[in-house]
Amino acid sequence: MHTSPPCTAAPLNHLADQREAAVIRLKELLRIPSISTDPAYREDVERAAGWIANFCAALGLTVETLRPDGGHPLVIATTTNDMVTPTGGNASAPPRRVLFYGHYDVQPPDPLEGWTDAPFEPTVRNGKLYARGASDDKGQVMMFLEALKAYRDTNTPLPCHVTVMIEGEEECGSVSLPAFLASDADKLKTGSAHDTVCVVSDTCMWDADTPAITYALRGLVYFDVKLHGPSRDLHSGVYGGSLANPATQLARVLGKLWDDQGRIAIPGFYDDVAPLTDAVRDEFARLNFDENAFTADVGATPFGEKEFNTLERRWVRPACDVNGLYGGYMGQGAKTVIPTFAGAKVSFRIPADMDPGKVAKQFTDWLHGHDVGGCRWELENHGEAWPVAVANDSPWLAAAARALEATAGKKPALVRDGATIPVIADFKNQLGIDTLLIGFGLNGDNIHSPDEHFALDRFHLGCRTHAALLAEVGAMG
Amino acid sequence: MHTSPPCTAAPLNHLADQREAAVIRLKELLRIPSISTDPAYREDVERAAGWIANFCAALGLTVETLRPDGGHPLVIATTTNDMVTPTGGNASAPPRRVLFYGHYDVQPPDPLEGWTDAPFEPTVRNGKLYARGASDDKGQVMMFLEALKAYRDTNTPLPCHVTVMIEGEEECGSVSLPAFLASDADKLKTGSAHDTVCVVSDTCMWDADTPAITYALRGLVYFDVKLHGPSRDLHSGVYGGSLANPATQLARVLGKLWDDQGRIAIPGFYDDVAPLTDAVRDEFARLNFDENAFTADVGATPFGEKEFNTLERRWVRPACDVNGLYGGYMGQGAKTVIPTFAGAKVSFRIPADMDPGKVAKQFTDWLHGHDVGGCRWELENHGEAWPVAVANDSPWLAAAARALEATAGKKPALVRDGATIPVIADFKNQLGIDTLLIGFGLNGDNIHSPDEHFALDRFHLGCRTHAALLAEVGAMG
Repeated sequence: MHTSPPCTAAPLNHLADQREAAVIRLKELLRIPSISTDPAYREDVERAAGWIANFCAALGLTVETLRPDGGHPLVIATTTNDMVTPTGGNASAPPRRVLFYGHYDVQPPDPLEGWTDAPFEPTVRNGKLYARGASDDKGQVMMFLEALKAYRDTNTPLPCHVTVMIEGEEECGSVSLPAFLASDADKLKTGSAHDTVCVVSDTCMWDADTPAITYALRGLVYFDVKLHGPSRDLHSGVYGGSLANPATQLARVLGKLWDDQGRIAIPGFYDDVAPLTDAVRDEFARLNFDENAFTADVGATPFGEKEFNTLERRWVRPACDVNGLYGGYMGQGAKTVIPTFAGAKVSFRIPADMDPGKVAKQFTDWLHGHDVGGCRWELENHGEAWPVAVANDSPWLAAAARALEATAGKKPALVRDGATIPVIADFKNQLGIDTLLIGFGLNGDNIHSPDEHFALDRFHLGCRTHAALLAEVGAMG
Repeated sequence: MHTSPPCTAAPLNHLADQREAAVIRLKELLRIPSISTDPAYREDVERAAGWIANFCAALGLTVETLRPDGGHPLVIATTTNDMVTPTGGNASAPPRRVLFYGHYDVQPPDPLEGWTDAPFEPTVRNGKLYARGASDDKGQVMMFLEALKAYRDTNTPLPCHVTVMIEGEEECGSVSLPAFLASDADKLKTGSAHDTVCVVSDTCMWDADTPAITYALRGLVYFDVKLHGPSRDLHSGVYGGSLANPATQLARVLGKLWDDQGRIAIPGFYDDVAPLTDAVRDEFARLNFDENAFTADVGATPFGEKEFNTLERRWVRPACDVNGLYGGYMGQGAKTVIPTFAGAKVSFRIPADMDPGKVAKQFTDWLHGHDVGGCRWELENHGEAWPVAVANDSPWLAAAARALEATAGKKPALVRDGATIPVIADFKNQLGIDTLLIGFGLNGDNIHSPDEHFALDRFHLGCRTHAALLAEVGAMG
């Protein structure tokens, strides 16, 4: 069993002492309703950014708060040279750098009636901390910052350089990051890309006992598709059957988007999907994933393309989902109205090697190809992200595996994820930096749902793991 | 040109003298905000019912105020035998009876900012009376009561019996009427159904110069169809492609409900639709309906079954509309959620000879016939109403046409309407009574919208017409 390098003893002991204090600090951050998609919470988003910036400054980091493209604040905090004492074998090489990326913004908490306690009043029940953002991603961000704090508080030199980059637009598509990466990428690395690795804690463990390193993600294309019809709401008795109802037409067109296995019916949609090799299929099979338990846990049964199992569908196959429907009368009871518009939120998850721009064009072309009886589309693109993957034999992966084995007492599973972290693809495509996805969430954490929570033992494991990871990266030489 | 029977001379002259006084009386009723859907206005609803009851009592009618099912008051007022002197040829036959149905409740006035003057402060501008309820339906109710008053004030015996039935729940679905009809139908007729005709003034003229008798309405079947999926909202990246998304499945199933002409795709759906005969087609054609103007007025173009024109589609063909869509994320921006449920309001307008119960069953069977990947339907039936039609050669229609020709100086158009008045079918199915729909509204009256109004010349025409109609019914023999 691997143990951590000696330099981590003091920080790890300190983290053990600070368990309660760390939770109190996290609660403070969770009380700020930093909902980035809703303009009503703009001030709270600013407040959360300020909280992170102050925390980083207290760690001795050099902090900058940027607003690329006029969006929500992006906090960048960097070690100074005097904070770092590399432990690697090659003293002449530039020290390694960990670029930690996370986000302080959160999803809207609705439906509010689903919460046991208020979403922005963090509450511990049965060893779990309940609050919007507890797992995604404030809790996981604080694991890294607490690891840094443990080095600081124990006067232990950092074994590698660190750049912390915490953004406030992850939940609304990280829209300003590309502009920042295009103009200010030098703020994120020293030396060559080879010396820097990005670390992200926004993913899951394989199960409550088994840590995981996620080495591939699907990309995302998200649209709000709105169909406009008559100039005002009409009486459906007087007008029904005489003109095109946009709610009817929207349903009629969207209804053609899938076959009965959920396969996307846009011509050519699957052309670029990387084929599933036997080797990868075997690798997945060795994880002994229980697809029935996975879906039963959320009151469902496996559903999708018959030639693939659930893990394959989630990790290497595209998906298209309606994330929302709206328009016309949405209240209790009946109102006989032909609405002036109706809309849907429609998103695509795309595995390697699909191009999000191409998918967006295929979808919008496909929509415009339908006769909607004189109604008019209003299509709003809410974000495009590329799929990503890190090579299985990367030395970064090996260092992360050592850190996890030392703190969790168990070798981590190497896994993929069906979800998307847009910036990871940008780091790779624009900066050449690989990313280690070392998360401590679980699928049952209810992220994006009512009663989101994070088990405190996983929070503390994450704090310890990040402290160990810094030492492993420093020791890579 | 037909002129009214001699007994109407005095009442008609009196109505001419009373034009200003009748408007003052109507304004008094319009000042009462009798909004039946909002519990905050319950006392005003009571006040309006009392106002109607008092008005009827002053006419010498026997008045009862009922509260079937504990709902808003229903005012029933009936002539006594000594008020009536039939003018028909058959003295031994029981006198005819007109059952006048209307409602004193009104729609909420919102959005208030759309009104030029306060909605419950009636104002005359350019010969039009502006107020909530001016056209729908207080103004049209008062036309009939003013006609009765003209007989009373001039000591002219009524030529037929009259029952006035004015309810306070029309704008909230006439929910208590079925219970009333089931238990107290005898209050509404004397002798056989053959001797009674129902008269309703809640429809429109053909145009500002041409009166109309509406002799057929479509029926209605209205459902809230909700599809339940996973037990909680899920992250669409983590779960996308692995289970059935209820919003996706709802769109996929609803999408199969229509073909690209808006024709309903449920097998057998059109089996009972009465064929459109050449005679009826010709009758419609003679109305010279401008379908492009009708749809352009609301920013649309004609759309629907290619073998039928717009008037035919509205009047004798079924329509199926999505009246609302809801579920998942309905706010601004993006949220990557697989919702736990999604729903739609779906309604059918059904012409003769469709059976609403059969349509409801066809629709629900059809929904259940689809594989929705383990999701579960929750179907709520919000009402079924039969289509209605009065035979074109009915003597009642002929009497009404004579009355309109005498007062408007022009033969009325015989028209249909695509909308539904559920109580009309109940009168026919439960009491065997036919209904004459003689309305003086226009589509431009903004009923259910801000600045609802009623042109005073149409109000006065309605008063005269109802006076003449009583005489025509009395003279039927």
